[in-house]
Parts: sequence; structure tokens; C-alpha cells
Amino acid sequence: MTEKFHGVIPPVVTPLTANGEVDVVSFERSLNRMIDAGVDGLFTLGSSGEVAFSTDKRRREIIENVMRIVDGRVPVLVGCIDTETNRVIEHAKEAKELGASAIVATAPFYALGGMAEVERHFRLIHEAVPDLPLFAYDIPVCVHTKLPGNLLVKLGKDGVLAGVKDSSNDDVSFRFLVDDNNKAGHPLTLLTGQEVVVDGAYMAGADGSVPGLANVEATGYVRMWKAAQAGDWATVKKEQDWLAALMRIVTVPSGVAGFGAGVGAFKTAMALLGVFDTNQMPDPVCPLKGENVEAVAGVLKEVGLTLAKNPQEVSNSTK
Amino acid sequence: MTEKFHGVIPPVVTPLTANGEVDVVSFERSLNRMIDAGVDGLFTLGSSGEVAFSTDKRRREIIENVMRIVDGRVPVLVGCIDTETNRVIEHAKEAKELGASAIVATAPFYALGGMAEVERHFRLIHEAVPDLPLFAYDIPVCVHTKLPGNLLVKLGKDGVLAGVKDSSNDDVSFRFLVDDNNKAGHPLTLLTGQEVVVDGAYMAGADGSVPGLANVEATGYVRMWKAAQAGDWATVKKEQDWLAALMRIVTVPSGVAGFGAGVGAFKTAMALLGVFDTNQMPDPVCPLKGENVEAVAGVLKEVGLTLAKNPQEVSNSTK
Amino acid sequence: MTEKFHGVIPPVVTPLTANGEVDVVSFERSLNRMIDAGVDGLFTLGSSGEVAFSTDKRRREIIENVMRIVDGRVPVLVGCIDTETNRVIEHAKEAKELGASAIVATAPFYALGGMAEVERHFRLIHEAVPDLPLFAYDIPVCVHTKLPGNLLVKLGKDGVLAGVKDSSNDDVSFRFLVDDNNKAGHPLTLLTGQEVVVDGAYMAGADGSVPGLANVEATGYVRMWKAAQAGDWATVKKEQDWLAALMRIVTVPSGVAGFGAGVGAFKTAMALLGVFDTNQMPDPVCPLKGENVEAVAGVLKEVGLTLAKNPQEVSNSTK
Amino acid sequence: MTEKFHGVIPPVVTPLTANGEVDVVSFERSLNRMIDAGVDGLFTLGSSGEVAFSTDKRRREIIENVMRIVDGRVPVLVGCIDTETNRVIEHAKEAKELGASAIVATAPFYALGGMAEVERHFRLIHEAVPDLPLFAYDIPVCVHTKLPGNLLVKLGKDGVLAGVKDSSNDDVSFRFLVDDNNKAGHPLTLLTGQEVVVDGAYMAGADGSVPGLANVEATGYVRMWKAAQAGDWATVKKEQDWLAALMRIVTVPSGVAGFGAGVGAFKTAMALLGVFDTNQMPDPVCPLKGENVEAVAGVLKEVGLTLAKNPQEVSNSTK
Repeated sequence: MTEKFHGVIPPVVTPLTANGEVDVVSFERSLNRMIDAGVDGLFTLGSSGEVAFSTDKRRREIIENVMRIVDGRVPVLVGCIDTETNRVIEHAKEAKELGASAIVATAPFYALGGMAEVERHFRLIHEAVPDLPLFAYDIPVCVHTKLPGNLLVKLGKDGVLAGVKDSSNDDVSFRFLVDDNNKAGHPLTLLTGQEVVVDGAYMAGADGSVPGLANVEATGYVRMWKAAQAGDWATVKKEQDWLAALMRIVTVPSGVAGFGAGVGAFKTAMALLGVFDTNQMPDPVCPLKGENVEAVAGVLKEVGLTLAKNPQEVSNSTK
Repeated sequence: MTEKFHGVIPPVVTPLTANGEVDVVSFERSLNRMIDAGVDGLFTLGSSGEVAFSTDKRRREIIENVMRIVDGRVPVLVGCIDTETNRVIEHAKEAKELGASAIVATAPFYALGGMAEVERHFRLIHEAVPDLPLFAYDIPVCVHTKLPGNLLVKLGKDGVLAGVKDSSNDDVSFRFLVDDNNKAGHPLTLLTGQEVVVDGAYMAGADGSVPGLANVEATGYVRMWKAAQAGDWATVKKEQDWLAALMRIVTVPSGVAGFGAGVGAFKTAMALLGVFDTNQMPDPVCPLKGENVEAVAGVLKEVGLTLAKNPQEVSNSTK
Repeated sequence: MTEKFHGVIPPVVTPLTANGEVDVVSFERSLNRMIDAGVDGLFTLGSSGEVAFSTDKRRREIIENVMRIVDGRVPVLVGCIDTETNRVIEHAKEAKELGASAIVATAPFYALGGMAEVERHFRLIHEAVPDLPLFAYDIPVCVHTKLPGNLLVKLGKDGVLAGVKDSSNDDVSFRFLVDDNNKAGHPLTLLTGQEVVVDGAYMAGADGSVPGLANVEATGYVRMWKAAQAGDWATVKKEQDWLAALMRIVTVPSGVAGFGAGVGAFKTAMALLGVFDTNQMPDPVCPLKGENVEAVAGVLKEVGLTLAKNPQEVSNSTK
Repeated sequence: MTEKFHGVIPPVVTPLTANGEVDVVSFERSLNRMIDAGVDGLFTLGSSGEVAFSTDKRRREIIENVMRIVDGRVPVLVGCIDTETNRVIEHAKEAKELGASAIVATAPFYALGGMAEVERHFRLIHEAVPDLPLFAYDIPVCVHTKLPGNLLVKLGKDGVLAGVKDSSNDDVSFRFLVDDNNKAGHPLTLLTGQEVVVDGAYMAGADGSVPGLANVEATGYVRMWKAAQAGDWATVKKEQDWLAALMRIVTVPSGVAGFGAGVGAFKTAMALLGVFDTNQMPDPVCPLKGENVEAVAGVLKEVGLTLAKNPQEVSNSTK
């Protein structure tokens, strides 16, 4: 049943107008472009989908747009990210009502606890929406808890979890998780959340990837996945090297860090490529401007992509 | 204007029924007991007020209950705790509508950023509810950002922040913050969120305290504050020593950590003292049971408090 | 027997010549000045005594100088700081041979382990030098392990540890440690390693303090300790407030952090006061220069101290 | 010149007798076995070579044994691991005198500082032994500083660093480091310190690997490196999968963590395979015993290795 979640499943970046509203036209352009590129699914309201910045109303608006635009062409995973169980369950029920193919939840955050609470958290979410596949989102950089492999496999065997999106940047643990999952009969679909070491994750046995950079360039990730499926590792390496060079858009901006640099660069690149109308960011983050936009444009050109807009236009797309 | 937020302002622990509903009768008993003890204000929906565990509907229910029960006898600060600016602003507007005397917000969490975003976050919240005093809640153990003293004082001087609730357990920084705030003309009301080193914070110049333990025993904190105001440090020390002995309720439970041990012990003590009907905890946290309840009872007796219920009854108060 | 380690026991800052050699003349001036001020002991080769920067030969040279200069006037504690047990034991044996009154050791660092190794580490050190009082140095910011109170008290009761130097900046744990130590019959001498919250530590029941700032100004700490012993908390507060104002020497330098700012400011202040000939720092750290020296001088003047040298002279005291 | 440091360069595990002395016979067996397997170099006194546990005398003894046994058959890198610059330089000079082919040093640790000190640290070490290739050892889990890629490449271009041993488990940064190094003309030899994601590091462009597990089984790593050189990624994957299965020896022990589990399992496996006479560990770490030895034996058998001793014999090899 979870077989359909294999392959390339980009976490959807949300386009905003200069006024901070959801930019529906850009959204259609971007989602259609990824589906046309051959992605296997889409993950909306992930960390890079600005879930943490969006009010509940905005989250609903984003899900509704994605469901309408995608229209069943690929499965849609929906991030139900919130501090603790009952808040997550509310999001999960809404995601279900709006037609999500699966949901994605992190460990609890903000309040302090232990692994007993983490385990009970996932069990209670699953009980609340038992027929909706539940992915655990392992993202310690945001939630400050690393999900242990043995807990994940146990929850997989118990039918609580359908899979894991691994954004832990702990590739050693990921390889052991793949191994443990295989020994347990492969109850979990294991997706890597990396962008530049997806090749290694595929060699380790990942069932797919959730690369934010695929919003900028999905075709490379699709080719890489197909090559990995075919055992053509030379092509996997070639595609990964090119995508890693493209990923430098997130390291060239200066004076900005974290989400502002990462998703800020994705949005800027997408604006430069003509996919998004603006590179607007959600409050309190400011969009990239001036030399930072030029630096992103420089990387795009260096890897051979053609700009639809010049940096000045993108800088002017927001106040 | 912020003068009224000096003194002892307990973060309100929320009583639940065995079914997990807000227990209104226990709530009235507890709030009245603290007001009768002479507290100077109440802070609802803080970390120990289970804000992170409560849905928006539940948060509203808690605020409404507190406002109704308190009925203007003391000022009420309301925690507007959420991941990023727009979500916090929604809570702030609701808090204002429900009659909050002031609001309390943390740095952004979950998404990664830098100090520029932290500063803009507080400015945008203040702009959204300009006439409501805004306290910064410095709690790095939950949000993984330490608020720098110079930023806090700057926001104080600019009229953005009315004060700080310091739960950083970094008493060196706190003393420097007091000093910087004094040099700037004391724009900020500085409250310590500690329980067992409040005496030191008062010596350092804190304007008050926000001790969760005051839900269990407010009279000691009230006496300590009055003694500090009078420069009677021997009494301050005596009261703090007694309260520190009482605080051992949070260190005696075994097999449980963080919120489950801390607020779990507070609720258990309040149930043993007859203030709360149960020691129920919000999902996914389990209430203390058996030997852990007995350990809490042992501490209460050791410091001379009289139990209204025996440990077995409290263990049986939840499933 | 450990009674003699109560009171003010400054961690000795090591003076260097411009060429980086031990400056014996300045050393005599500084140690005599602290002893004349009435300190109860001295702690050489602590973190601020540049133990981590000193070769074994240099460590020996420092101990020999301290023992010779002090000449039995006060007890001398010697830091035996190294990565793991056998390396620490070598230092301990040398400290014993050179006449140390007690030794101070941290938890193991660099290699990863658990509490079983920490406990065995202290037991093996004690076995190697059984007649030399052993203090545990709790400094997680350097060794990345927080020593648990119950382990410390257990090692105290077993005669392994004579005391604890607490530099954890975790005053909550420190208060509980004092409490546990008292309940166990006070096997441990508990010293706080703080500078600006010593008043709170004394209220909590500390047996003394180890403030690096006492190298700059010991008299205030001596007065504060005497006042604390007499229960004169108003004087304790007054002295602490003044010393906290003086401690701002470590926060005014810009462009430098950690040891370079902290000990760098101590040495600069001591040079400005005429105690040290230079403010030279051990490689790879650079001494404070120019505006940073002026900023330190500004603080000294602000709190009423008289400079013996002007900032330019101190800036010129090193290359 | 640094070309000779490419390929498989195991960090040498140090065999001890039951009494804790260096076990020279086992050492010869182990080093000869790795050289016969075709390793390209050896790295002695790395983290897994118990450098942190060894006195200076013991370090010298280890280096002398390694140099004598290796006798020029492969280059020998020597770890010069200590807290700060001058202590490292002493080790570096001794390593040079004893014939090291290159030295390996970490960022400073214990004392707190910033990147300016880190940079000056490496420059001063290089100045002290200018003709000895210097590798930076990036191991934040031990030294709590992550070496930034741009600093490393800058030091490479300036001739200060000859290469990097990357044990950061941050594969994203490693891929960017490879990229930056290539753009700068490949001044640095980049070695991954991983065991189970070496395949990904080779795809990313690593110049070699430093896998502790190669002490247990070097032939697989040699085959993997040759396959990577030949672009035969299917073989790379096959070998890595087998070695990852073998690496489970470090995850099966219970009740022990860090060095005790990791190097403890390596030594136990080597004793079971007849390479080491005992699985003795340096103080304060205890050797694996009983069920933990059986668990390691179980993994060895599962991956097809033949035991030379039974678990009971190995358990009895130490007190």
C-alpha cells in the first residue's frame, strides 16, 4: 500500500505574492512543472513549505490549492507539524478531510519529554486517523529529538508508521535503519530528505528522496532515481554532482542563515527561472535582495540553467 | 505602566479531569488559592500551563476560565506560544480580545534563523497588538535560542517589549541584563522563571518571579518577595531554603523526565493537597502513578505540608 | 580535614612575558597581593590558569613558582586537567610531589563515554593519590559532561571526593547538590566557580568561591565571604553588585570570545592596574589590543579603580 | 607530494595485554595483517587508537612500535591530539623525530575560542614542523568545533594543511568541501573517517578513507577503494553493504556507549578473530564481557567470518 510513496517526492515550496498572499498562478506553474518532470509524489507543508510560518487558515489554503492543482496525478503527502499530539491530530484530521494521501509528523517539540512520549505520540496520531498512512519526519535540527531506528522499525511493524522522511543528516544511522527495516520485512518506506548526498542514500537502500531543490530542478532528481533503480550508478553520480553544484545557491547568500538562506535561495532561483513571480518570504523572514540575488543567479548560470528574469527584476519583486 | 507586573506571578498549571477536559472546579480552587495567598499576577498558558499541548480551542477555553475566575483581582499575562510570527499574532489578537493584561511570546522556533528574524518577530507582534504589553519569554531549553541582553534592552527602549520572563537558567546573563536594563533607565520589567534560585535573582535585582512551584505553595513565594522588598535577606534565604526543599517533588519521580516529571509532580502535589481533583496530564504524557506519587507525598510531608488525599487515591484519580 | 578549603580561593591567572615565558616578578606581585587581601587559598592551573595551553614542563614551572611564592601561607589546589585517567594521574602524582594541598580534576573529555566511566575515573585518580584531597571540577562548557549531584555525593560519602568546584552555571542543580550534601552529612566542600552570582551561591549554602575576577580584585570577594559568614546579606549584595559591575571587563571587548575575552580581560585589567607587566596570552590566543584595552580601562575607572598604566602602554606591552 | 595519502588508511587500534601494557605481539599481527590486505597507509594515535587515554610515554611507545613494525612499507600518519597549540607542537616534534610521514591535529579543545584561534592554531603547528604534511582532523563530536570548509581550503591553498580527515558525520558539508577543494586546484587530500557510508563519500569524490572497522576487516575496504577507482559502483555498494553489516558489532553491545562500545567492539572482534590476544581497554573504560562478547561474535558469524576463539575465551582474556 505504501509502495506508491517511492521515488522522488519534492517538499513543495509555497509561492507568495509581494503582499504575502498565496500566489496561486505561480503555484500552478510550479506544481505542474514538477509533475511534468516526472516526480512520484509531492509533500506539502513540510519545513521548506513554510508550515511553521503558516496559520491554520493559511495551511488549509495551501492544502486546498495543492489538492486542486495536482488533481490526483500523483499522491500528496501533507505535513501535520505542531508542538504536541492534540495539535497534530487536528491537522491530521483536516488533512484527511482535504484528501491527503498520507500525513507526515515530527516528534513532539517545545515541551521536554522522553522516548516514551515520542512513541505514544505517534501511536495516538495513528489511532486518530487509522486509515491514513503516517510518516515520521526525523528532523532533529528543528525538533531537537533524533528518532531512534529501533523505535521507528517497531512502529513500522506495529502498523503505526508507513514510512520515514529522514532529514537528520545522520547517514550512519540511516544506513542502519535501512538494514533494520529490511531485516523486519521492510514495513517502512524510507525517504531521504537530503539534496546533495542522495546518491549515497540510494546506495544505502533508500526508497526515495524528498529534496527541496527539486522545486528548482526536478528533472535531475527524476533521472537520478531512474538510474538508481536501474543500477546505473555512474549516472546517479553524474546527476548528483550536477545537482550538488546547483545546490550552492543556498551557500552563496551572505548575512542570512537557516530558512532565509535555504528556502530564500530556492524561491529566488525559482523567480529567476520564471517559475515564481516573486521570491517573497513569510514573516519574520526577509526575501533575498541585491547581491544575494545576483549570487544565486551566478550559480544558476554556472550549472547551465537559463534565466527568465534578471536579478534586478527579482530584487524588485518584493518591497 | 508595566509597574503592575512586579512581584510573584505564578505560571498557572491547568487542571484536567480524568477524561482530559479542563477541570473548572479545580481551576477555581487553585486560582482563588493563589490570589488569596497574595500573588501579584497570574501567567496563563506558559510552558507549565501546557500551552504546547493545547489546541487553539483548548487555549481559548483556558484563557476564558482564567479571566472569569480572576475577574480583575490581579493582572493576567497570557502566553502566545507558537512557532513563528503570524501564528503568534493570531494568539495575541485572541488574548487581547479575551482581556489579557499582557502577552508573553518566545523567540521563533522550529524553523532556523538568526537574530535579525528574532528582532523582527518581536517588532511585528508588537505592531499587531500595540497597546498590549509584550513580554519576551527567554526559554532556550524549549526554543533553542538564547535572547541576548543587548537585543532585549534595545527592544525595551524602543517600546516593543515591556519585560522579560527569564527561564534561561543562565544567572550570569540575567545579572548583566539587570545591569544593562538599569543603565538604560529600566525600560523592562525583569521576572525570573526560576523556583529554587529566586533569592539570588532578587539579590541581582529582579522585579519579580514566575515560579511554577507557586501553584503548589504560593505563600512562601509571597513572603519571600515581601522580605526582598524590605531588604530582609535572612527571611528571603529561609523561605527559599524551604521552597527548594519542597521543589524536590520534581526530582524524586523516576522513569520520567521533563514536563512529565516537572508539571507531573506539580499536579500530583496539588492533588495530594486537595487543590486538584486529579493529576491528569495532557497527551502524550502520562500522569505519575504508584511509587512516584508516594515519593511526591513523602516530600510534601517532609517539608511540613498536610495531605488532603493519600497517594493511592491520587494514583486512582486517572486511568 | 577539608575544612581548610572554605572561603575565597581564586583560580590563579598566569602572567606571561611578551615572549610568552612565565613572568615570575608579576607572578609574585599578583599572588602576594591576593594573599594580602585575605584569600583563603589559591587554585593554580585551573581553566583560567591556562592549564589547557601549558605543556607539562610549563605546568611544572607554574606549580613550582606558586608553591615557592605562597610558601605555605594558604593552601594551594592544583588543577590536574587532562583528557583521560592515566594522563590525569601523571599530573596528580607530580602535583603531590611538588606539595599541592589538594588536586582538582574534571570528568574525562575528548573520548566519548558514560557515567560509569566518569565514576571509575574519579575512583582511579583517588586510588593513585589516596592521601591528597580530590576535588571534582564540574565544567560542562569545557568537558561537555555535567556531573550529576547524586554521583558527586556518593563519591563524597565513599571518601573519593573531598569537594566540588562548580563551574556549571547551573545554579538550580547547585542548590540541590548543597541540599543532598547536607543530608549526607556534608562530606563535600562545595565551591562555586562563578563571579557575578556568588551571592546567590552563598545564600544557597556554598562553602566558598573560586572567582577568576579575584585576580583583579580580591578584596571585594573577601569582604563578601566574611559578610556571608556573618549573615550580613546587605553587604554581600553590595559587594556582589560592585564586583558584577567590574566583571563587565569581560563583556566589553569586541571581536573576541571565550578564553581570549575572559582571561584576556583579566590580564589586561591586571596590567592596567600595574599587577602584571603585560597582558600576553598563550598561543594561539592573541592579547587584547587598542580599543579593547581602552574598553577594559573604561570599566575599571567606572567602578572606581585607579589605573597604574594607560591603555596605550598595555597595548604596547606585547607585539 | 600528498598523493601518497590516498586510499585506505585505517586508524590503528592499539592492543593491550590484560595488565594494560602495549601487546607488541598482537600489534605486529594486526599491522602486518592490514598491510598484507593492501592498505595504503596507517594512522596511529587517532581517536580509536586511544590517543586520549595514553600518557606521553605510552604515545611514544605506540609510535615506536608502529614505525618499527611498518618499516616503511606504507606511510604512517601520527595523531598529535591535545588541548591547545603548544601541547600539540610537542607531540608534532616527537612524531617527526620518530619518523612520521604526516601528522594529524584537531581544532583546539577544552578552552573556548573562535575561528581566529583555530586558524592560528593550525598555522603555528605548521610553522613548528614545516616539512611534515599536516592533516586537520574534523571531529566535532570530540572537540565540539566543526571546521568550516572555506577555512580548510584557505589553509590548503596557503600550504598549511595537506589534507583533512573528516569524522564530522556531516556528509552535506563534506560534499561541498570536495567541490570547493576541486575548484581551488585540489590542495587538500580529503579522507572520510566513516565506516558505513564510505560509498557515498567516494561518490562525492573523497580521496580515501580512514575506517576504524578496517582493523577488523581491511580486505573489504581495499576492494571497495579499488572498485571506486575503477568506477565499478556496483562492487562498491556490495562491499559497503557487507561492511555495514559487519559494523553492527558496535551497535549490539548493551549498557555501554561511545568509545567503550565502538573500540570495545573492534577489540573484541579482533580477539575473537585471533588477531588480538585480549580485548583489554584503557582506564577508565572496561572491556566487553559475557553477553556483549557473544553479541559481537554473533555478528561476525552472521557476515561469514570464522572465529579463532570462542566468546568465553575472550571474556576471560581480561580480569
